[in-house]
Formats: sequence, structure tokens, C-alpha cells
Amino acid sequence: MDPSMTAVGWHNLLPDLDRSSIVPLYRQIYESLREAILTGTLPESTRLPPERSLAERLAINRSTVVHAYRELVADGLIEQRVGSGSRVVPQLRGGQPERAAGVPWWVTLPPWRVGEFPNVLGELAAKQQSGRISFVQGVAPDEPSPLGELAKSFGRVARDPRFILSYGDSEGYEPLRSAIAARMNARGAGGVAPNNVIVLTGSTQGIAIVAQSLAEPGDEIVVEAPSYPGALQVFQINGLRAIAVPVDDDGMRVDHVEAILRTRRPRFIYTMPSLHNPTNATMNADRRERLITIARRAGVPIVEDDPYGPLASNSAPPLVALAPDHVVYLSTFSKTIAPSLRVGWLVAPRTILERLLLRKQAYDMATSLYVQAAVTDYLDAGYDAHVEQLREELLLRRRLADVAIGRHWPTALKASGPAGGFYLWATTPRELRARALLDAAERLGSSFLFGEPFFANSGGDHHFRLALTAVKRQEIDEGIRRIGEAIASLRA
Amino acid sequence: MDPSMTAVGWHNLLPDLDRSSIVPLYRQIYESLREAILTGTLPESTRLPPERSLAERLAINRSTVVHAYRELVADGLIEQRVGSGSRVVPQLRGGQPERAAGVPWWVTLPPWRVGEFPNVLGELAAKQQSGRISFVQGVAPDEPSPLGELAKSFGRVARDPRFILSYGDSEGYEPLRSAIAARMNARGAGGVAPNNVIVLTGSTQGIAIVAQSLAEPGDEIVVEAPSYPGALQVFQINGLRAIAVPVDDDGMRVDHVEAILRTRRPRFIYTMPSLHNPTNATMNADRRERLITIARRAGVPIVEDDPYGPLASNSAPPLVALAPDHVVYLSTFSKTIAPSLRVGWLVAPRTILERLLLRKQAYDMATSLYVQAAVTDYLDAGYDAHVEQLREELLLRRRLADVAIGRHWPTALKASGPAGGFYLWATTPRELRARALLDAAERLGSSFLFGEPFFANSGGDHHFRLALTAVKRQEIDEGIRRIGEAIASLRA
Repeated sequence: MDPSMTAVGWHNLLPDLDRSSIVPLYRQIYESLREAILTGTLPESTRLPPERSLAERLAINRSTVVHAYRELVADGLIEQRVGSGSRVVPQLRGGQPERAAGVPWWVTLPPWRVGEFPNVLGELAAKQQSGRISFVQGVAPDEPSPLGELAKSFGRVARDPRFILSYGDSEGYEPLRSAIAARMNARGAGGVAPNNVIVLTGSTQGIAIVAQSLAEPGDEIVVEAPSYPGALQVFQINGLRAIAVPVDDDGMRVDHVEAILRTRRPRFIYTMPSLHNPTNATMNADRRERLITIARRAGVPIVEDDPYGPLASNSAPPLVALAPDHVVYLSTFSKTIAPSLRVGWLVAPRTILERLLLRKQAYDMATSLYVQAAVTDYLDAGYDAHVEQLREELLLRRRLADVAIGRHWPTALKASGPAGGFYLWATTPRELRARALLDAAERLGSSFLFGEPFFANSGGDHHFRLALTAVKRQEIDEGIRRIGEAIASLRA
Repeated sequence: MDPSMTAVGWHNLLPDLDRSSIVPLYRQIYESLREAILTGTLPESTRLPPERSLAERLAINRSTVVHAYRELVADGLIEQRVGSGSRVVPQLRGGQPERAAGVPWWVTLPPWRVGEFPNVLGELAAKQQSGRISFVQGVAPDEPSPLGELAKSFGRVARDPRFILSYGDSEGYEPLRSAIAARMNARGAGGVAPNNVIVLTGSTQGIAIVAQSLAEPGDEIVVEAPSYPGALQVFQINGLRAIAVPVDDDGMRVDHVEAILRTRRPRFIYTMPSLHNPTNATMNADRRERLITIARRAGVPIVEDDPYGPLASNSAPPLVALAPDHVVYLSTFSKTIAPSLRVGWLVAPRTILERLLLRKQAYDMATSLYVQAAVTDYLDAGYDAHVEQLREELLLRRRLADVAIGRHWPTALKASGPAGGFYLWATTPRELRARALLDAAERLGSSFLFGEPFFANSGGDHHFRLALTAVKRQEIDEGIRRIGEAIASLRA
């Protein structure tokens, strides 16, 4: 007779699942079973319970158990055969239960902190390439195009050995840092000098820098709900515990932040105060001042993520203009010029700049000097005219979207947020989850991003985001019409 | 009368310095004093002991105390005035001693792990720009130049919206991953498929990925002594504790690794088996096999850093060819094409690839698709001819250096290691530290990198590295002559 988990009392081996943990449920199950196998508590050839029974026992989704078992198969710890289920395979065992000789090394790696939506970019890219009218990825529109002038800038620097055969400085190319400081000054941040600026390989790098320099795994931070999925992913992989604060049409609910700061000392407050992703909200002036006052009083720094701020038509000065000693500011040329540049920047007080710089250096030494030199050239050559056209294009696209929504969507499907940014944030009626709407819309040839990845903890199942920039302008109406048709088909 | 530290018994406040800690001494002193100030143990206006007295008391260098005090000044915790020394300035205090409201936020940041040589790249770059004949930075030589063909490759992709207006996939541009896999196959690593490859923003990014994905702060790793300073810096900033193993002319002393693995389970073994930086050593075939055998038996993965391997004339297959399931392989185009590309790659078993990929994604989303597309084009257009010329140039430069050393250096100053790579590793006589030689050489207009940054724990004070590629070919003789003159001046 086969040994089976019933024989060894498998209900004793199951984890006390922690449903509020940052460790996904599948990972908790996987790690519990892995340890039982490596320590011999689950002997060789033991049959694991069927996925469905285990799922019922733990009151979780069957796919979660499937995922956990698949990881164990990948580790060589169990094998699965049609008809006879999953069994523990023989292990080489040494003296120590973990990290012993003979145990496959990847089995004993440190904990891996990933969420339910780990590979956001991969999934976005795949959806974007699906052939549908895909409102998925936050890329700049194809028109106006920077390509012609940008190619000239690339060409002007491509044969200069100073830009090609050198690493450059970790803090970035000095003329680019100066140009960035001058543009920050023009937006009202008069205190920003070139030596407050570090050039980054995209602003995601800045999010990683603050996550690893200003906090440690297990620390709390404050984020917005919804917020940018890429940032939430970086915080999660670094083990930070997010306290989420709602966003309304005037931006982050600063009164919620104030309540939190009465009892907590988060490591930082992450906010996108101008043309927030995904809601397009811009924080009003009162809230900006209040946020700085309370953050300063509590001794909690603000991380201002501002990828879209340079596109705002009536731009309020960024938070860093009001409190240069208290804000780490991040921005990028990915939205205003092109994402493939991978050039962004941060602005920080001199007090902590070297700390941030050494972290940047430990990621990639320096950002491509060649690309930095080309961007510097383009800032003089074509940037301002391009950004001006881009602002108009964004407003036009939103007007087209609003007209299309008026024509094609039932009133129960609501679009919210002001114009000006890349996105339109929408809300489904109570009886309809956004994922169900997405399934129907994809069958009709339209695609968007459902709301859950925008929420650090939970929420978003009745929201979705349209990136109005990700499609051709003339596709906006038809793409929105298909979503309207999808909801009609679901209600029929 | 002023309160003084003598009055409050300052010898009780001083830290038990841990001289084997990864935390630098200045930082230990700084953190101890900072805590005393923030908690009020050192009251307002207390006078700190003069730097010289404190240094004597702790039996350390005065500059270490100067550094610690400077950090306290930067935090606003003490002030320094000529004549009256250093005093504690008034602090706002809340309920909690640390992270209380009113304490400047940067004072309570998590521990900062930096070594004695934190900003290696910054210092290298500064020395390289000094106007001396500077053998400092590990850059490719100015001749043969990739510039012409490379500029054409950049030009061919610069106007293609697919390459400019897109983020691309985090794992990299598929044709580049295929081209990399094909070249790895040609070097004997037949098991490498495109889906084992992740394109990196330089191979430093790969070092950061393994440091953060395969280990946690406090974990032990095995490194070579000497080793690449950039890697040691990444390990240090991530809190890894290095166990150092010597390198001789046949590469890493694998017998030492074997002894370590009898009692320790390091998280990984970091080695540069082909054209090692800084010694140019290449590990022989016996050691390669032995290393893999013992690492596999112990369940400890190998991280093979191979920036120079593609330049080896009689290239042994990389370690990853012998054990594709057990090696994470890193390389780069910085040395074979140009550093400003910031394009490298890693090769890893599929078992852990997603883990590594999500870490890469959390650093910068994706490597510039534009630059990746240009590199892919250049691999077909000019790469092989360029690398062939580069190999010959490296051998020629070493011959010129050997001739110059024979003419200009006393026999007590020894150059070691085989030819083929970028570097020449030298040893000073017992009575002369490399830093003293550097001071004298710089006065005579020649510069190099002293040995200490190449050692994770201690050592290197009688070694230095010449990057033969960092100067013009016709400057090699004169640069080496000046170093010979420097030693003569010191002995006179």
C-alpha cells in the first residue's frame, strides 16, 4: 500500500495560512510542503492530497494549490502523473534539513516576495501585441512623433568617442543634470541645483532606490489607492508593507495620511500628485501644503513620483518646489519623449544624495552616456515643441473618448477623473466585475487593464484603466464602442 | 561653564568598535554618537572630544573620526567652530527616541552599508580625467574603434518606432537573446537557449540581481582575493559577508573553496574564471571541473562573471558550459564594444529565471530597446572583426608594457599574470606600500589604482593595477617609465 498523506496525518502539516501576509497563499503552501519534504516529515513516495481536496480544506481557490504543486514539481520535490496524482520523490539528505549537501540549491533560496500580478510589464506587453484595439500599456502616443528630431540628436552624438567609449559619472552627464535643474526651476522648483540631480535608467530605478535606501524589508510605507502597479511591485519585492490611502478628484486624501501619522511612522509617503496614474487626478494646492506640513512634523519624507507632471497644461509646482529638504522627486523622459530611452532622474536633498547615488551605482554603474548626450541634444532641438503638441494630443484624445463613451456606454459604466494625462479610469456597475467585462471585451477585440494591480492590498475589482495613448487616435471610438457592446452582451 | 563630554563621562559613550564588521569604523562611531544625541544621553551644547583625542582613545586613524563628525554635522546634530571644537546642537524631541516627530528624517534612515572605498566609479572617473597618463579605469582602448560601424547600426534603428516608442520585454529583445545564445553555443555552452538569457543594463546589474535574489543581508558568499571592486561594492551595500579565497596564475584556489565548503554553506561562489580582473588569470581545466564538483555536492551555486571571456584568444568554455544547471553566468558588451551601451546579459537555469527577471524588472523595467536593437545589428555588421582586432591590440599592449617594465622598473617591482586581458597586476617591494608609490607617481604624471579596493576584507596594500587599455598605446612606455622614476625617487 502506498503511503499517503492521510496516513501521516496531512491535516497537521498544512500551513496556518496568513491571508494578510505579503507572501502569496500559493507560496505559503509551497514553502510548508517543501519544508516537510526536505525534513523528511513527508517521506518519499507519500501521495499528496488531490488539488481539489486541499483547496476545499483550506477554503481557497483550486488554482492556488495547482500553482503551489507546480513549484514543487519544478524543484524536483514531487512528481505528478495522470491518474495517480502527486507524490514525493526521493531526496538526497545530509545532516542539516535546510541547505544540506545534495539538496538542489534553488530549493533553499531566500524568500521570494511576489504578488498576484508579478510580471506586470510582461503581461502588458503581451496584451499590447494581441492585435486587438488594446488600451493596455502606458506608452506615449504614436503621434506627435519625436522620431525625426530624436534620430538627428542620436546621430549628432553617435560618433563622439567621449560619449561612446566611456562610462561617465554615476550621477549622470553634467549638461543633462543642468538642463534638468533648469527645467525644474522653470516649473517653480527654484531650489533645485544640478548637484541635487541624479540621472536614472528610467524612473523605476528611482522607485527601487527609495525602496532600498529609505526603508528595510518589513517597514511600512504609505501609498495611494489606486497607484502605479510598477511601483507597488517594486515595494512588494522589497518586502515593504503598504498602507493605502484613497485618491479622489483632488488627489491623495491627505486627511487619511494625517490620521495614519498619528499612530504610525511609515518610512515614506509615495504619491503621484500631478496627473496621477491611473486616475489623472492632480492634488490641489491646499492638500499639497497640508501634506508637507504633516509629513515634516512627523519626520516622514515624501517620495513624489512625477512622470506626467511635465505634461500638465496648468502645472502646479511639484511638491519638491515647496519642500526641497523633505521630498525625493522622481521623473522620466519615457512619457514625454520615448520609453526606450530609459532615462529618468531624481532630485533629492544633498544630505542623502550620496546614499542614493551609491545605490544607483550598485544597480548599473551609470546610465548610458550616449543616450544621455542624445537626450541633452534633443532638449535643445525638439523637446519643447514636441511636448506642446503632446499636451494638445492628450486633451484631444480625452475629448474623443468622452464623446465615444457618451455614444456607446450605458450610464452604469462610469468614466472618472479630469483630462490631461494618458489614462481614463472607469468604474463598472455593482453587479459586474471589471475582469468579466474584460473577458467579454477581448472577445469583441478590445482590451484594457483591470483594476486589481493598482491596489497594494485589495480592491479594484470594479475598476479598469484605459490608456488612451496606447491606440491610434482613430481607433479610440471603435475600441470604446466594443467595450460598450461587451457590457450589453453581458446584460443580455 | 560648558557641559563637556568629560563631565558626562564620554568614555562610557564610546562604541565597542567591531573591527571585523562590514560597518565601517567611522559609521560605528557616528551611529553611537547619533543615538546618544537623539536620546538625550549627550545633552544640548555638550562639547565633543577633539578629533585627535578621540582617535587616540580608540586607537584609530584621526581621519576616521573626522569623517564621523562630518556626518553628524551634515545631520544637523553637532556644529563645529574654529577654536571651540564640536558641540551638540539643540534637538526637537518627541516621545520616541528614534523616528520621533521632529527628528530630521534622514537621521533615522536604515543602516547604510558602505565600505572604505564607496564611490569607486566616481574616483576612477576623476582620476581618469586628471590629465595624467592614467592607467586607472577598465575601459576598452581607443583603437581599434567600433565607432564607425556602431554609428551605422545606431542609425539603422533610430527611426523605427518599434524600437523607440516601446518598452519592450523585461527579458530583452528576442533577436538579441538569440544572438547571445548562439555565441554562447559557439563557445562550447551548447545548452544555452534564448530563454535562458536575460538582457541586462550592464553586467553590474547582474551582480545586483544575484546579490539580492540568491542571498539576504548577513549571508556569507565566497569571492576571490583580489576581485572586481564593483562587485565587492555591490555585495557590501547588500550586507553580504564575503569569505575571500586567493587567486594564483591558474585562477581561484579551488582547494581553499573545498575547505570552506566542509564547514560553511555560502549562498554562492562568485568567480571570474577567464581573464580575471585584476590578475588576468584564467582558471585551468582541472580546477574548473573540481569547482563544479564540490559546488554541486554542497548545493552552492556558482556565479560566473565573464566580462573578458569573449576576448580570450584560446578560450576555455565558460563554467556554465560544464554545469548549466548550477551556474548563473554574467557578461557584457562594455569591454568588447563600448561601456556607454550599458548592455550585458545573464544566463541562468529556467528554474530560477523568473525570480531573476522580476528583480531586473524592479530595477529598470527593461534595458533600452533602441540600444538593444543597435547592438543586435552591430553583432552582424562589425562585431567579430572588431573583437579580433581587439584581441591583437590587447596582446600588443601587454608586450609593450613588458618591454617598458624591463627597461624602467627595478626588479623589486614585479608585474604578474598572463597576457590577454585589460590589466597588469603588480606587486611592490616589502618596504613600499602601493599608495605611497601612487602618490609619487602622480607627482610625476602617471596614475593607477592601488590594491585595497580589490580585497573584500583586507589586503592589497602592496599591489596595484594598471589598466593598459585606459591610455593611448604610445603612452604606455612613458607612463610605466614615470612609475619607475617614482620608485627610484622614493628609494633615493
